[in-house]
Amino acid sequence: MILESIKHPRQLKEMSLEALSTLASEMREALLKKLSAHGGHFGSNFGIVEATVALHYTFDSPKDKIIFDVSHQSYCHKMLTGRALAFTDESKYDDVSGYSAPYESEHDMFTMGHTSTSVSLALGLAKARDLTGKDNHVIAVIGDGSLSGGEALEALNYAGEFDGRLIILVNDNDMSIAENHGGMYLGLKELRDTKGKAQNNIFKAFGLEYMYVDEGNDIGALIEALSIAKTCSRPVVVHIRTKKGMGYAPAEIERESWHATAPFDIKTGERLFSKNSDISYANLTALHLLERMKADKTIVSLTAATPTVAGFTKDRRDIAGKQFIDVGIAEENALAMASGIAKAGGKPVWAVNSTFLQRTYDQMSHDVCLNSSPVTTVVFASSILCGSDVTHIGIYDIPMLSNIPNLKYLAPTCKEEYLAMLDWSIDQDKYPVAIKVPGKDFTESGRVARADYSKCEYEIVSAGSEVAILALGAFFPIGETVCEELLARGIKATLINPMFISELDTRTLEKLRPNHKVVITLEDGILDGGFGERIARFYGNSDTRVLCYGLKKEFPFKYTIEGILKENRLTAPQITEDIEAILK
Amino acid sequence: MILESIKHPRQLKEMSLEALSTLASEMREALLKKLSAHGGHFGSNFGIVEATVALHYTFDSPKDKIIFDVSHQSYCHKMLTGRALAFTDESKYDDVSGYSAPYESEHDMFTMGHTSTSVSLALGLAKARDLTGKDNHVIAVIGDGSLSGGEALEALNYAGEFDGRLIILVNDNDMSIAENHGGMYLGLKELRDTKGKAQNNIFKAFGLEYMYVDEGNDIGALIEALSIAKTCSRPVVVHIRTKKGMGYAPAEIERESWHATAPFDIKTGERLFSKNSDISYANLTALHLLERMKADKTIVSLTAATPTVAGFTKDRRDIAGKQFIDVGIAEENALAMASGIAKAGGKPVWAVNSTFLQRTYDQMSHDVCLNSSPVTTVVFASSILCGSDVTHIGIYDIPMLSNIPNLKYLAPTCKEEYLAMLDWSIDQDKYPVAIKVPGKDFTESGRVARADYSKCEYEIVSAGSEVAILALGAFFPIGETVCEELLARGIKATLINPMFISELDTRTLEKLRPNHKVVITLEDGILDGGFGERIARFYGNSDTRVLCYGLKKEFPFKYTIEGILKENRLTAPQITEDIEAILK
Repeated sequence: MILESIKHPRQLKEMSLEALSTLASEMREALLKKLSAHGGHFGSNFGIVEATVALHYTFDSPKDKIIFDVSHQSYCHKMLTGRALAFTDESKYDDVSGYSAPYESEHDMFTMGHTSTSVSLALGLAKARDLTGKDNHVIAVIGDGSLSGGEALEALNYAGEFDGRLIILVNDNDMSIAENHGGMYLGLKELRDTKGKAQNNIFKAFGLEYMYVDEGNDIGALIEALSIAKTCSRPVVVHIRTKKGMGYAPAEIERESWHATAPFDIKTGERLFSKNSDISYANLTALHLLERMKADKTIVSLTAATPTVAGFTKDRRDIAGKQFIDVGIAEENALAMASGIAKAGGKPVWAVNSTFLQRTYDQMSHDVCLNSSPVTTVVFASSILCGSDVTHIGIYDIPMLSNIPNLKYLAPTCKEEYLAMLDWSIDQDKYPVAIKVPGKDFTESGRVARADYSKCEYEIVSAGSEVAILALGAFFPIGETVCEELLARGIKATLINPMFISELDTRTLEKLRPNHKVVITLEDGILDGGFGERIARFYGNSDTRVLCYGLKKEFPFKYTIEGILKENRLTAPQITEDIEAILK
Repeated sequence: MILESIKHPRQLKEMSLEALSTLASEMREALLKKLSAHGGHFGSNFGIVEATVALHYTFDSPKDKIIFDVSHQSYCHKMLTGRALAFTDESKYDDVSGYSAPYESEHDMFTMGHTSTSVSLALGLAKARDLTGKDNHVIAVIGDGSLSGGEALEALNYAGEFDGRLIILVNDNDMSIAENHGGMYLGLKELRDTKGKAQNNIFKAFGLEYMYVDEGNDIGALIEALSIAKTCSRPVVVHIRTKKGMGYAPAEIERESWHATAPFDIKTGERLFSKNSDISYANLTALHLLERMKADKTIVSLTAATPTVAGFTKDRRDIAGKQFIDVGIAEENALAMASGIAKAGGKPVWAVNSTFLQRTYDQMSHDVCLNSSPVTTVVFASSILCGSDVTHIGIYDIPMLSNIPNLKYLAPTCKEEYLAMLDWSIDQDKYPVAIKVPGKDFTESGRVARADYSKCEYEIVSAGSEVAILALGAFFPIGETVCEELLARGIKATLINPMFISELDTRTLEKLRPNHKVVITLEDGILDGGFGERIARFYGNSDTRVLCYGLKKEFPFKYTIEGILKENRLTAPQITEDIEAILK
């Protein structure tokens, strides 16, 4: 096997085209075997095998810098840069992360996982190269789907006037996670149809040099094009047409569902686990919204290229019709557009993963909240319990959202509350609302949830004394367990379901004062700037003690859910122990 | 005077072209008189007089919705929508804000002041129109400078596939605040040069219909074009060429300095106040960086279209040469590019107003901090003491920045500390650093500032007991005064200059515990998610009382600096009073 012998990409330079082609086959085979057992990003990696080989043949990494946008398609790059065993040796599958990772290799420049950043980062590397008098190449590798993100478009525009060398490889497989959205994609199609000759050319419109490679899965053609691009004295786009999922029939056909996959049976393509379980909040959301859309034609669900986050699979999108909008990778536009919809009497529901919501801090603040636009934002994957790579973890949304004026950030604890909050938010027209989805799979409490969330009023689930536990959202069950453990020790604590993250129910908090010595706060996110600190400030000038439980402010690179909870003293026994120590 | 008789834009419909032309002259005259006495945005308003008249002649506001991007160029729109007296009657000059304001008029849909939002907002209005079965027109009016912002580019792309009516009026005056930046502007020039016929057309590349009006200051030509656009069944760009500052010679020539102006002498054009005083942090920053750039060619200053925020006037930009980058209105690209520069050995300093920094929450988190890129961000206008319209106020940066992992957010209190922090940040290569500029004009403390800010260590300015005052950044002088007032009452308080916003000096905080009953925190920003709450959490499980002083979480629409400080009990006498009450 050639692949396993590749310890450094420079080895490729001595290989014949034929050998490179064999290598590519081996890479695809390794990918198939690993992903069938392990799961991961499928389609884009299968499409970019040849381009990655050609890049490493043509350039000298790590002196030359190759930046993979999002970096979910950098598996092949990892194989060629000293990490082949993580793809060929089952016992080493977990030795590498699914994204570019500087701690793994000097061939990876950035930890990244959000889209549309590569051109900006590459521009910076190129600028520093010129300032420091070096002469290396910088190559941004960006998929067509990522092109529509504001950060990428801003960078393409600036690249058009940048006076140095820069290569932008556009890997065009005619797909985002789902189908592409936006007018520019008609133009890309025209370019593919005319083999790069169409006059309507978005890259030239940004002032960039332009080259087209129709055979984006042909190593020879790619090497030829890249060798020419290498000589270009100013920023140049190399637009290559590739086939998403190439080499594995099911993935070539069902491109959306094979963007990323759970483990599967290679022969049949059948998944061993389904991605969204029946009891996922994603499915619940889509089904509920579809039901409501039938009766109310002004309800509209929005996504920025991740429709299944809220359960909107292709069939459901078709049912929703004009009441479903996918703006493509363009979070800023999604949220600002939602504000416009809300201002003119529509009822927009924007579903987004916590990590991608970060793109819209200003839109949330200005376009939505400054205008009190009644937009509903449903924040998925906003829980440490969901688990995720450091590049996608959702533990920062409480400080990000809850300190924006006018926004009601709500934390349901169960299915019933979630749906009640969603319905209330859709039906009211006064407040911008965000709802923090508590974990991934829902639990049914069986209780009837409150219908109105206009006024911030915590729910006192059980009244006690000495200790009050304010257990927010997904961490409510931890609070319940602590209460039980305390009760076993003869302490009847007060258990509160706060539900409101961004406001204080000062009346309830005042009432706790006389007969509670300690107030415990529990939140599913970092503590800094969060819910607990607001409570600590409230009680700052009093004898009431406040202990805040949540996560440390950090980027957790490697963790297990169990481990990180323990490390942060977020298990019921640990909290119970702390409370006992105070009450002694 | 026709202008004063205009109470509603429908009155324009009965006017002849000649009368409309007279009206335009009166509008320009009123603008000149008001701005000479009052100051405000000059160039863009002078350029857009005729287009505003034509818009209101052609469309039926408020049924039809006209959304002015940034809205600093909506003065003429205000004149024609019932607010003429605010431009013709000196005593009413302050009756209107400088931006579109729904509380002033039903002709203003959004409170706005950040660039590049109009197309998204308009798309939302158009979508809601279609969902609710209405038939009004929606028009986004966007300047060429705003086109480069990610939010606008995302929206143009989505507009290219939007299946409803939408008009995008591109007001092309070949200028941002300073000159435009980015490859697309060469394309716009080509379009102007060929009267819209060039094949290289960014709007068509986004899939939009396109019309060009060369005489963008000719009411007749504009009405004709808009009347055609009105019949277009899908999104159409009407690209008009206008003259920034048109009708006032000094502003036609010196377009950058006349973008916005202080009061001036109409005859000579001479300003009655200079914009950046000699003791401004802006001038200090530019001069200091220019000095350092001479000795170190890897230092590079970045701006997103607001070079003078850090004092980089045209002459200074010329001196800096390749060590100054203006990426145009494109904050996301500016910061991500800075991260790339830092990763490859350059020393980037990004200067930005607090309010515009909001555009880069995700870039700060992912592109910079997740990668520990040693980028220096200097946060200007991040003080309530600067005063500003609600659309530009800088009181939210503490919760926004200080809760992002890995970022050192520093708060200098004087010139000496500011420069020491700036130098330290530039010279180190471990931390992403942001510096909160304390107000606008600097004070010299005369003290030698610490050189190293790697380790979070507060400065104990004077040691006392009973009360400790942690007075952050621009609010340090309030802390000093409180200490003096307490001393006059026989209480010797401890005064601390914390300097570090995003970290806790737990050693110093621990030391305060035994002999201090109360800890006071003072911060120049909203309290929620801020510095004081972190301190309150720290002392949560102890007898130490904590009182946090800062601003309420809100969007302050109308306020005076004195008034808002008093309202939030941020004056020294109020704080002293509170402390006395606790110590009793």
